[in-house]
Amino acid sequence: MDLKKYLKEKKDAVDSFFREYFREQRRPAVLQESMLYSLFAGGKRVRPILAMAAYEACGGAAADIVPYASTLELIHTYSLIHDDLPAMDNDDLRRGKPTNHKVYGEAVAILAGDALLTEAFRILSDPSHSNKVKDRDLLKASAEIAAAAGYQGMVAGQVQDILSENAEADAETLQFIHRHKTAALIRASVKAGGILSGSSSEVVGALTSYGENMGHAFQVIDDILDVEGDTEELGKTVGSDEKINKMTYPRLYGLERSRGIAKELVDAAVASLDVFSSGADPLREIARYLLERRN
Amino acid sequence: MDLKKYLKEKKDAVDSFFREYFREQRRPAVLQESMLYSLFAGGKRVRPILAMAAYEACGGAAADIVPYASTLELIHTYSLIHDDLPAMDNDDLRRGKPTNHKVYGEAVAILAGDALLTEAFRILSDPSHSNKVKDRDLLKASAEIAAAAGYQGMVAGQVQDILSENAEADAETLQFIHRHKTAALIRASVKAGGILSGSSSEVVGALTSYGENMGHAFQVIDDILDVEGDTEELGKTVGSDEKINKMTYPRLYGLERSRGIAKELVDAAVASLDVFSSGADPLREIARYLLERRN
Repeated sequence: MDLKKYLKEKKDAVDSFFREYFREQRRPAVLQESMLYSLFAGGKRVRPILAMAAYEACGGAAADIVPYASTLELIHTYSLIHDDLPAMDNDDLRRGKPTNHKVYGEAVAILAGDALLTEAFRILSDPSHSNKVKDRDLLKASAEIAAAAGYQGMVAGQVQDILSENAEADAETLQFIHRHKTAALIRASVKAGGILSGSSSEVVGALTSYGENMGHAFQVIDDILDVEGDTEELGKTVGSDEKINKMTYPRLYGLERSRGIAKELVDAAVASLDVFSSGADPLREIARYLLERRN
Repeated sequence: MDLKKYLKEKKDAVDSFFREYFREQRRPAVLQESMLYSLFAGGKRVRPILAMAAYEACGGAAADIVPYASTLELIHTYSLIHDDLPAMDNDDLRRGKPTNHKVYGEAVAILAGDALLTEAFRILSDPSHSNKVKDRDLLKASAEIAAAAGYQGMVAGQVQDILSENAEADAETLQFIHRHKTAALIRASVKAGGILSGSSSEVVGALTSYGENMGHAFQVIDDILDVEGDTEELGKTVGSDEKINKMTYPRLYGLERSRGIAKELVDAAVASLDVFSSGADPLREIARYLLERRN
């Protein structure tokens, strides 16, 4: 299969949905502008693509769940805006562009994040976005995503990350941070795709295992890239995590062992897909592609 | 009817739900602590009570929707935490207690707000909280609440409020701010109660009209109290809105006319309830009680 083409098609579907959804100019203009600024700041739509690929692995047509899959990007984007705030990581650049609060100020940036998060659940509460998804499955997918994003998921990881700045790195805390801050939403993305398709709990379980390993791999590779990358390619100040003494895999295990861990995780992710036929090839390809990621 | 007793019973039901829902200590402890600090900082649970009273007006038993009604308090509380931030209103006190960020720092306060908002929609996605509510009605109530809280509702009002600081007060902008910042969620609370009961659109429409007028009245009275009250009674720095030149009703119309407007709105709210029998008496009593509010 042509993975590049696959990724582009799916990304385009998400982008089109956002353009359509937010086409009407709402007041106050600066709020919507600020939301769209970050939403179209170069995100690769990884989480929506994973949700759609999982839905396809279960026999569905990705086009039927584009709005629901897109909510994962709304949540991801909100988390980046809030992470970048002066009170948090205090980052000036994100993907090579000034961060939201640098452009719109802190107040609007906080509120734009709040609005993106809220809009995700507004879309997940609207059954009119698809006639293929059952009400109960939509509720279950929404609950899954909310659990992954909330105080037992992503937010817990972010708080722990902040608490751990300048602390001695220990493996258990690092695991907690990654499992919650990054892996939880990646896992929920894949799982939500399965849930929306109405698949059996066995099938959803296999997807969950894939998502779990992928989520973990994702953060390990992020950490590696942060050490290796150069500012131009990565679009953020390289070594910025190092600078404020954040716990990272390379810091704890060194670069080589970190790369080994990433490979093991990706292999485990692919192995979880054994119950699926070629319908899961995109998920398999995405996993392998992840290892070659350079930005 | 004994309104005081009614309000206390309903408030106790909400408080009990929160204690039960958050009884397990989650990591990191400071996040949950910060969420609960603001959740139990003296809120009167007005929005959940309105939702439950609306549900009862439609013939339901309030006990059947306590978790769903409580989500309105989660959202209200998140909005207060974010409003108080240094980047927004920069308030040190809320209901006589130090604001969340004063106690836990800005980063944790922002994330506690995020977590409360997310948890609201997690609960609204979980049909196991009631066997009386249909899946479709739960989705509709959730969508209604999300719309009221998001970039076309509460967040829009907050952004406009910030944009309007130090600007000349004009009536149209003041209306926009209040309609969105406060009235939208009050209206959604009442409406959601009706939706959850599975009532006809006519009945929900009557509740919406009540909620609309109540929401508006609420903010007018808030503004009046802000001018009149003393710090001890109100628990926040009196005149703080005046100080930073926020648009308020008293500033625009004077105190007496503002009080007249509040009375007209409450009368209109009560008139909307003509289609209901005595089941709507709590809604009627709450409206009249609002006018006598002193804190």
